[in-house]
Amino acid sequence: MTDILQNLEKTIRERRSADPAQSYVASLRKKGRAKMAEKLGEEAVEAVIAAVQDDKAGMTGEAADIMFHLMVLLVDMDLSIDDVLAELARREGLSGITEKASRKD
Amino acid sequence: MTDILQNLEKTIRERRSADPAQSYVASLRKKGRAKMAEKLGEEAVEAVIAAVQDDKAGMTGEAADIMFHLMVLLVDMDLSIDDVLAELARREGLSGITEKASRKD
Amino acid sequence: MTDILQNLEKTIRERRSADPAQSYVASLRKKGRAKMAEKLGEEAVEAVIAAVQDDKAGMTGEAADIMFHLMVLLVDMDLSIDDVLAELARREGLSGITEKASRKD
Amino acid sequence: MTDILQNLEKTIRERRSADPAQSYVASLRKKGRAKMAEKLGEEAVEAVIAAVQDDKAGMTGEAADIMFHLMVLLVDMDLSIDDVLAELARREGLSGITEKASRKD
Repeated sequence: MTDILQNLEKTIRERRSADPAQSYVASLRKKGRAKMAEKLGEEAVEAVIAAVQDDKAGMTGEAADIMFHLMVLLVDMDLSIDDVLAELARREGLSGITEKASRKD
Repeated sequence: MTDILQNLEKTIRERRSADPAQSYVASLRKKGRAKMAEKLGEEAVEAVIAAVQDDKAGMTGEAADIMFHLMVLLVDMDLSIDDVLAELARREGLSGITEKASRKD
Repeated sequence: MTDILQNLEKTIRERRSADPAQSYVASLRKKGRAKMAEKLGEEAVEAVIAAVQDDKAGMTGEAADIMFHLMVLLVDMDLSIDDVLAELARREGLSGITEKASRKD
Repeated sequence: MTDILQNLEKTIRERRSADPAQSYVASLRKKGRAKMAEKLGEEAVEAVIAAVQDDKAGMTGEAADIMFHLMVLLVDMDLSIDDVLAELARREGLSGITEKASRKD
Protein backbone atom coordinates (compact mmCIF):
# COMPACT_ATOMS: atom_id res chain seq x y z
CA MET A 1 0.00 0.00 0.00
CA THR A 2 3.12 2.08 0.22
CA ASP A 3 3.02 4.63 -2.51
CA ILE A 4 -0.59 4.74 -3.59
CA LEU A 5 -1.17 8.29 -2.41
CA GLN A 6 2.07 9.55 -3.94
CA ASN A 7 1.21 7.83 -7.23
CA LEU A 8 -2.30 9.27 -7.14
CA GLU A 9 -0.89 12.74 -6.54
CA LYS A 10 1.38 12.34 -9.56
CA THR A 11 -1.56 11.19 -11.69
CA ILE A 12 -3.70 14.13 -10.56
CA ARG A 13 -0.88 16.52 -11.38
CA GLU A 14 -0.57 15.06 -14.88
CA ARG A 15 -4.30 14.97 -15.61
CA ARG A 16 -4.80 18.64 -14.75
CA SER A 17 -3.57 19.65 -18.20
CA ALA A 18 -5.61 17.02 -20.05
CA ASP A 19 -8.76 17.75 -22.06
CA PRO A 20 -11.56 18.64 -19.58
CA ALA A 21 -13.94 16.61 -21.75
CA GLN A 22 -11.78 13.52 -21.22
CA SER A 23 -10.50 13.96 -17.67
CA TYR A 24 -12.46 14.51 -14.45
CA VAL A 25 -9.43 16.16 -12.83
CA ALA A 26 -9.05 18.56 -15.75
CA SER A 27 -12.77 19.35 -15.65
CA LEU A 28 -12.51 20.22 -11.94
CA ARG A 29 -9.48 22.40 -12.62
CA LYS A 30 -11.42 24.25 -15.31
CA LYS A 31 -14.32 24.85 -12.91
CA GLY A 32 -11.93 26.23 -10.33
CA ARG A 33 -10.95 26.05 -6.68
CA ALA A 34 -14.44 26.72 -5.26
CA LYS A 35 -15.93 23.80 -7.20
CA MET A 36 -13.15 21.49 -5.98
CA ALA A 37 -13.84 22.61 -2.40
CA GLU A 38 -17.56 22.08 -2.92
CA LYS A 39 -16.91 18.50 -4.03
CA LEU A 40 -14.82 17.83 -0.90
CA GLY A 41 -17.64 19.17 1.26
CA GLU A 42 -20.23 17.04 -0.53
CA GLU A 43 -18.19 13.86 -0.18
CA ALA A 44 -17.71 14.58 3.51
CA VAL A 45 -21.47 14.92 3.97
CA GLU A 46 -21.94 11.56 2.24
CA ALA A 47 -19.31 9.98 4.50
CA VAL A 48 -21.03 11.43 7.59
CA ILE A 49 -24.28 9.79 6.46
CA ALA A 50 -22.62 6.45 5.66
CA ALA A 51 -20.97 6.47 9.10
CA VAL A 52 -24.20 7.20 10.98
CA GLN A 53 -25.98 4.51 8.94
CA ASP A 54 -23.12 2.06 9.64
CA ASP A 55 -22.85 1.46 5.88
CA LYS A 56 -19.44 -0.20 5.66
CA ALA A 57 -19.30 -0.65 1.87
CA GLY A 58 -20.53 2.89 1.35
CA MET A 59 -18.00 4.26 3.84
CA THR A 60 -15.02 2.75 1.99
CA GLY A 61 -16.14 4.44 -1.22
CA GLU A 62 -16.91 7.77 0.47
CA ALA A 63 -13.55 7.75 2.28
CA ALA A 64 -11.83 7.21 -1.08
CA ASP A 65 -13.89 10.07 -2.55
CA ILE A 66 -12.82 12.36 0.30
CA MET A 67 -9.15 11.49 -0.11
CA PHE A 68 -9.30 11.91 -3.88
CA HIS A 69 -10.92 15.34 -3.76
CA LEU A 70 -8.71 16.41 -0.86
CA MET A 71 -5.69 15.60 -3.03
CA VAL A 72 -7.16 17.47 -6.00
CA LEU A 73 -7.35 20.52 -3.72
CA LEU A 74 -3.84 20.01 -2.30
CA VAL A 75 -2.37 19.87 -5.80
CA ASP A 76 -4.34 22.97 -6.82
CA MET A 77 -2.85 24.79 -3.80
CA ASP A 78 0.71 23.63 -4.57
CA LEU A 79 0.67 21.44 -1.50
CA SER A 80 1.53 17.76 -1.32
CA ILE A 81 0.07 14.76 0.47
CA ASP A 82 3.54 14.37 2.00
CA ASP A 83 3.04 17.72 3.80
CA VAL A 84 -0.14 16.32 5.32
CA LEU A 85 1.45 12.99 6.25
CA ALA A 86 4.37 14.85 7.86
CA GLU A 87 1.90 16.87 9.92
CA LEU A 88 0.14 13.67 11.02
CA ALA A 89 3.53 12.11 11.94
CA ARG A 90 4.46 15.20 13.92
CA ARG A 91 1.25 14.93 15.94
CA GLU A 92 1.77 11.19 16.29
CA GLY A 93 4.80 11.98 18.44
CA LEU A 94 2.42 13.65 20.86
CA SER A 95 -0.21 11.70 22.74
CA GLY A 96 -3.64 11.68 24.25
CA ILE A 97 -4.96 14.97 25.55
CA THR A 98 -1.67 16.69 24.83
CA GLU A 99 -2.16 15.79 21.21
CA LYS A 100 -5.72 17.06 21.29
CA ALA A 101 -4.58 20.39 22.69
CA SER A 102 -2.06 20.73 19.87
CA ARG A 103 -4.65 20.00 17.23
CA LYS A 104 -7.52 22.26 18.04
CA ASP A 105 -7.73 25.74 19.44
CA MET B 1 6.26 8.67 4.43
CA THR B 2 5.52 5.04 3.85
CA ASP B 3 3.70 3.72 6.85
CA ILE B 4 2.44 6.83 8.59
CA LEU B 5 -1.22 6.06 7.99
CA GLN B 6 -0.85 2.41 9.02
CA ASN B 7 1.01 3.48 12.18
CA LEU B 8 -1.63 6.10 12.93
CA GLU B 9 -4.35 3.50 12.51
CA LYS B 10 -2.57 1.24 14.98
CA THR B 11 -2.24 4.09 17.46
CA ILE B 12 -5.92 4.98 17.12
CA ARG B 13 -6.87 1.36 17.69
CA GLU B 14 -4.77 1.22 20.86
CA ARG B 15 -5.96 4.53 22.28
CA ARG B 16 -9.64 3.63 21.98
CA SER B 17 -9.44 1.66 25.22
CA ALA B 18 -7.49 4.36 27.09
CA ASP B 19 -8.96 6.67 29.73
CA PRO B 20 -11.29 9.16 27.95
CA ALA B 21 -9.94 11.85 30.27
CA GLN B 22 -6.43 11.21 28.96
CA SER B 23 -7.00 10.33 25.31
CA TYR B 24 -8.85 12.28 22.61
CA VAL B 25 -9.50 9.08 20.66
CA ALA B 26 -10.98 7.39 23.73
CA SER B 27 -13.13 10.46 24.44
CA LEU B 28 -14.51 10.34 20.88
CA ARG B 29 -15.20 6.62 21.24
CA LYS B 30 -17.12 7.30 24.45
CA LYS B 31 -19.20 10.00 22.73
CA GLY B 32 -20.04 7.59 19.93
CA ARG B 33 -20.19 7.24 16.17
CA ALA B 34 -22.37 10.30 15.53
CA LYS B 35 -19.93 12.59 17.34
CA MET B 36 -17.02 11.15 15.33
CA ALA B 37 -18.97 11.77 12.13
CA GLU B 38 -19.79 15.30 13.26
CA LYS B 39 -16.10 16.01 13.78
CA LEU B 40 -15.30 14.78 10.26
CA GLY B 41 -17.98 17.06 8.85
CA GLU B 42 -16.69 20.04 10.82
CA GLU B 43 -13.11 19.53 9.70
CA ALA B 44 -14.29 19.25 6.09
CA VAL B 45 -16.10 22.58 6.41
CA GLU B 46 -12.90 24.16 7.76
CA ALA B 47 -10.91 22.69 4.86
CA VAL B 48 -13.45 24.05 2.36
CA ILE B 49 -12.98 27.52 3.86
CA ALA B 50 -9.17 27.25 3.93
CA ALA B 51 -9.22 26.18 0.27
CA VAL B 52 -11.44 29.05 -0.86
CA GLN B 53 -9.30 31.50 1.11
CA ASP B 54 -6.13 29.97 -0.40
CA ASP B 55 -4.77 29.50 3.15
CA LYS B 56 -1.95 27.04 2.52
CA ALA B 57 -0.76 26.62 6.11
CA GLY B 58 -4.35 26.25 7.29
CA MET B 59 -5.10 23.73 4.57
CA THR B 60 -2.26 21.40 5.61
CA GLY B 61 -3.61 21.33 9.16
CA GLU B 62 -7.23 20.90 8.07
CA ALA B 63 -6.29 18.09 5.68
CA ALA B 64 -4.51 16.33 8.55
CA ASP B 65 -7.61 16.86 10.73
CA ILE B 66 -9.82 15.32 8.04
CA MET B 67 -7.57 12.29 7.64
CA PHE B 68 -7.28 11.79 11.39
CA HIS B 69 -11.04 11.89 12.01
CA LEU B 70 -11.71 9.81 8.90
CA MET B 71 -9.42 7.13 10.34
CA VAL B 72 -11.12 7.34 13.74
CA LEU B 73 -14.38 6.57 11.92
CA LEU B 74 -12.88 3.78 9.83
CA VAL B 75 -11.53 2.05 12.95
CA ASP B 76 -14.89 2.46 14.69
CA MET B 77 -16.54 0.76 11.71
CA ASP B 78 -14.00 -2.11 11.64
CA LEU B 79 -12.62 -0.81 8.37
CA SER B 80 -8.98 -0.07 7.59
CA ILE B 81 -7.16 2.68 5.74
CA ASP B 82 -5.78 -0.13 3.54
CA ASP B 83 -9.34 -0.80 2.31
CA VAL B 84 -9.55 2.83 1.24
CA LEU B 85 -6.11 2.85 -0.37
CA ALA B 86 -6.99 -0.35 -2.24
CA GLU B 87 -10.15 1.35 -3.53
CA LEU B 88 -8.10 4.36 -4.67
CA ALA B 89 -5.60 2.04 -6.39
CA ARG B 90 -8.42 0.18 -8.12
CA ARG B 91 -9.77 3.44 -9.52
CA GLU B 92 -6.24 4.53 -10.42
CA GLY B 93 -6.21 1.75 -12.98
CA LEU B 94 -9.07 3.53 -14.69
CA SER B 95 -8.68 6.94 -16.26
CA GLY B 96 -10.26 10.24 -17.10
CA ILE B 97 -13.98 10.26 -17.69
CA THR B 98 -14.16 6.49 -17.40
CA GLU B 99 -12.82 6.86 -13.90
CA LYS B 100 -15.36 9.55 -13.13
CA ALA B 101 -18.18 7.31 -14.27
CA SER B 102 -16.96 4.55 -11.96
CA ARG B 103 -16.73 6.88 -8.99
CA LYS B 104 -20.15 8.44 -8.87
CA ASP B 105 -23.62 6.94 -8.90
CA MET C 1 -43.63 38.18 3.61
CA THR C 2 -45.86 36.83 6.30
CA ASP C 3 -46.88 33.36 5.35
CA ILE C 4 -44.38 32.34 2.72
CA LEU C 5 -42.80 29.60 4.81
CA GLN C 6 -46.17 28.24 5.93
CA ASN C 7 -47.39 28.24 2.33
CA LEU C 8 -44.20 26.55 1.17
CA GLU C 9 -44.62 23.89 3.84
CA LYS C 10 -48.16 23.25 2.65
CA THR C 11 -46.95 22.95 -0.94
CA ILE C 12 -44.18 20.56 0.04
CA ARG C 13 -46.67 18.42 1.95
CA GLU C 14 -48.95 18.26 -1.09
CA ARG C 15 -46.21 17.52 -3.62
CA ARG C 16 -44.87 14.56 -1.68
CA SER C 17 -47.57 12.34 -3.10
CA ALA C 18 -47.15 13.61 -6.67
CA ASP C 19 -45.45 11.67 -9.49
CA PRO C 20 -41.68 11.59 -8.74
CA ALA C 21 -41.07 12.15 -12.45
CA GLN C 22 -43.02 15.41 -12.27
CA SER C 23 -42.17 16.74 -8.81
CA TYR C 24 -38.76 17.38 -7.24
CA VAL C 25 -40.26 17.01 -3.74
CA ALA C 26 -41.80 13.66 -4.65
CA SER C 27 -38.50 12.50 -6.18
CA LEU C 28 -36.68 13.38 -2.95
CA ARG C 29 -39.30 11.53 -0.92
CA LYS C 30 -38.84 8.47 -3.11
CA LYS C 31 -35.05 8.59 -2.60
CA GLY C 32 -35.54 8.80 1.14
CA ARG C 33 -34.46 10.66 4.24
CA ALA C 34 -30.71 10.23 3.76
CA LYS C 35 -30.85 11.79 0.30
CA MET C 36 -32.85 14.74 1.64
CA ALA C 37 -30.25 15.19 4.40
CA GLU C 38 -27.45 14.97 1.83
CA LYS C 39 -29.06 17.77 -0.19
CA LEU C 40 -29.26 19.97 2.91
CA GLY C 41 -25.59 19.36 3.60
CA GLU C 42 -24.62 20.14 0.00
CA GLU C 43 -26.56 23.39 -0.04
CA ALA C 44 -24.94 24.41 3.24
CA VAL C 45 -21.48 23.81 1.74
CA GLU C 46 -22.44 26.00 -1.23
CA ALA C 47 -23.67 28.73 1.12
CA VAL C 48 -20.43 28.55 3.12
CA ILE C 49 -18.49 29.10 -0.11
CA ALA C 50 -20.75 31.95 -1.29
CA ALA C 51 -20.33 33.63 2.12
CA VAL C 52 -16.54 33.38 2.11
CA GLN C 53 -16.46 34.67 -1.46
CA ASP C 54 -18.83 37.52 -0.53
CA ASP C 55 -21.09 36.47 -3.40
CA LYS C 56 -24.31 38.29 -2.50
CA ALA C 57 -26.46 37.09 -5.40
CA GLY C 58 -25.25 33.54 -4.89
CA MET C 59 -25.89 33.73 -1.16
CA THR C 60 -29.55 34.65 -1.61
CA GLY C 61 -30.07 31.60 -3.81
CA GLU C 62 -28.10 29.28 -1.53
CA ALA C 63 -29.98 30.52 1.53
CA ALA C 64 -33.26 29.77 -0.27
CA ASP C 65 -31.93 26.31 -1.18
CA ILE C 66 -31.03 25.64 2.46
CA MET C 67 -34.45 26.71 3.71
CA PHE C 68 -36.24 24.69 1.03
CA HIS C 69 -34.37 21.47 1.76
CA LEU C 70 -34.59 22.06 5.52
CA MET C 71 -38.35 22.24 5.14
CA VAL C 72 -38.43 19.09 3.02
CA LEU C 73 -36.68 17.34 5.91
CA LEU C 74 -38.95 18.86 8.56
CA VAL C 75 -42.05 17.67 6.70
CA ASP C 76 -40.52 14.20 6.27
CA MET C 77 -39.96 14.08 10.05
CA ASP C 78 -43.51 15.25 10.84
CA LEU C 79 -42.16 18.52 12.13
CA SER C 80 -43.28 22.00 11.13
CA ILE C 81 -41.50 25.25 10.39
CA ASP C 82 -43.67 26.70 13.16
CA ASP C 83 -41.87 24.44 15.66
CA VAL C 84 -38.58 25.94 14.50
CA LEU C 85 -39.87 29.51 14.59
CA ALA C 86 -41.24 28.92 18.09
CA GLU C 87 -37.81 27.69 19.17
CA LEU C 88 -36.19 30.80 17.68
CA ALA C 89 -38.74 33.01 19.46
CA ARG C 90 -38.08 31.24 22.75
CA ARG C 91 -34.37 31.92 22.43
CA GLU C 92 -35.10 35.47 21.36
CA GLY C 93 -36.38 36.06 24.88
CA LEU C 94 -32.88 35.29 26.10
CA SER C 95 -29.93 37.50 25.27
CA GLY C 96 -26.25 37.75 24.53
CA ILE C 97 -24.01 35.17 26.15
CA THR C 98 -26.91 33.75 28.14
CA GLU C 99 -28.55 32.95 24.84
CA LYS C 100 -25.35 31.39 23.55
CA ALA C 101 -25.14 29.14 26.59
CA SER C 102 -28.70 27.97 26.04
CA ARG C 103 -28.07 27.14 22.42
CA LYS C 104 -25.06 24.93 22.51
CA ASP C 105 -24.20 21.74 24.37
CA MET D 1 -45.47 33.21 13.88
CA THR D 2 -45.63 36.12 11.51
CA ASP D 3 -42.65 38.32 12.17
CA ILE D 4 -40.28 36.14 14.13
CA LEU D 5 -37.61 36.09 11.44
CA GLN D 6 -37.87 39.83 10.82
CA ASN D 7 -37.64 40.49 14.57
CA LEU D 8 -34.68 38.14 14.87
CA GLU D 9 -32.95 39.93 12.01
CA LYS D 10 -33.47 43.25 13.78
CA THR D 11 -32.06 41.82 17.01
CA ILE D 12 -29.02 40.39 15.21
CA ARG D 13 -28.40 43.76 13.57
CA GLU D 14 -28.53 45.52 16.94
CA ARG D 15 -26.35 43.01 18.79
CA ARG D 16 -23.54 43.22 16.26
CA SER D 17 -22.27 46.40 17.88
CA ALA D 18 -22.57 45.06 21.44
CA ASP D 19 -19.64 43.96 23.61
CA PRO D 20 -18.30 40.67 22.16
CA ALA D 21 -17.84 39.43 25.74
CA GLN D 22 -21.57 39.88 26.33
CA SER D 23 -23.12 39.03 22.97
CA TYR D 24 -22.72 35.88 20.88
CA VAL D 25 -23.61 37.81 17.71
CA ALA D 26 -20.98 40.46 18.47
CA SER D 27 -18.41 37.75 19.20
CA LEU D 28 -19.12 36.13 15.81
CA ARG D 29 -18.82 39.51 14.10
CA LYS D 30 -15.46 40.06 15.75
CA LYS D 31 -14.24 36.64 14.57
CA GLY D 32 -15.31 37.46 11.04
CA ARG D 33 -17.19 36.11 8.03
CA ALA D 34 -15.28 32.82 7.76
CA LYS D 35 -16.10 31.90 11.36
CA MET D 36 -19.79 32.69 10.79
CA ALA D 37 -19.74 30.48 7.68
CA GLU D 38 -17.99 27.72 9.62
CA LYS D 39 -20.75 27.80 12.24
CA LEU D 40 -23.42 27.47 9.53
CA GLY D 41 -21.60 24.48 8.09
CA GLU D 42 -21.27 22.83 11.50
CA GLU D 43 -24.94 23.28 12.31
CA ALA D 44 -25.87 21.80 8.94
CA VAL D 45 -23.75 18.73 9.67
CA GLU D 46 -25.52 18.34 13.01
CA ALA D 47 -28.91 18.65 11.30
CA VAL D 48 -27.90 16.03 8.72
CA ILE D 49 -27.06 13.65 11.56
CA ALA D 50 -30.27 14.41 13.49
CA ALA D 51 -32.28 13.77 10.32
CA VAL D 52 -30.62 10.44 9.57
CA GLN D 53 -31.08 9.40 13.20
CA ASP D 54 -34.74 10.50 13.08
CA ASP D 55 -34.09 12.62 16.19
CA LYS D 56 -37.13 14.92 16.14
CA ALA D 57 -36.30 16.99 19.22
CA GLY D 58 -32.71 17.38 18.06
CA MET D 59 -33.84 18.36 14.56
CA THR D 60 -35.97 21.25 15.80
CA GLY D 61 -32.99 22.67 17.66
CA GLU D 62 -30.57 22.12 14.78
CA ALA D 63 -32.99 23.70 12.30
CA ALA D 64 -33.20 26.75 14.60
CA ASP D 65 -29.38 26.82 14.80
CA ILE D 66 -29.13 26.73 11.00
CA MET D 67 -31.65 29.56 10.57
CA PHE D 68 -29.97 31.66 13.26
CA HIS D 69 -26.48 31.34 11.79
CA LEU D 70 -27.81 31.78 8.25
CA MET D 71 -29.33 35.09 9.35
CA VAL D 72 -26.09 36.16 11.05
CA LEU D 73 -24.40 35.63 7.67
CA LEU D 74 -27.14 37.41 5.71
CA VAL D 75 -26.86 40.47 7.96
CA ASP D 76 -23.07 40.43 7.66
CA MET D 77 -23.46 40.44 3.87
CA ASP D 78 -26.01 43.28 3.91
CA LEU D 79 -28.71 40.89 2.81
CA SER D 80 -32.09 40.37 4.43
CA ILE D 81 -34.23 37.36 5.21
CA ASP D 82 -36.91 39.10 3.13
CA ASP D 83 -34.66 38.69 0.06
CA VAL D 84 -34.54 34.96 0.74
CA LEU D 85 -38.27 34.69 1.36
CA ALA D 86 -38.94 36.62 -1.85
CA GLU D 87 -36.73 34.14 -3.73
CA LEU D 88 -38.65 31.22 -2.19
CA ALA D 89 -41.96 32.86 -3.15
CA ARG D 90 -40.73 33.41 -6.70
CA ARG D 91 -39.90 29.71 -7.02
CA GLU D 92 -43.19 28.82 -5.37
CA GLY D 93 -44.89 30.19 -8.46
CA LEU D 94 -43.11 27.50 -10.43
CA SER D 95 -43.84 23.84 -9.95
CA GLY D 96 -42.52 20.32 -9.90
CA ILE D 97 -39.69 19.52 -12.24
CA THR D 98 -39.88 22.98 -13.80
CA GLU D 99 -39.09 24.37 -10.37
CA LYS D 100 -36.24 21.94 -9.95
CA ALA D 101 -34.73 23.02 -13.24
CA SER D 102 -34.89 26.66 -12.14
CA ARG D 103 -33.19 25.91 -8.86
CA LYS D 104 -30.12 23.99 -9.87
CA ASP D 105 -27.63 24.49 -12.64
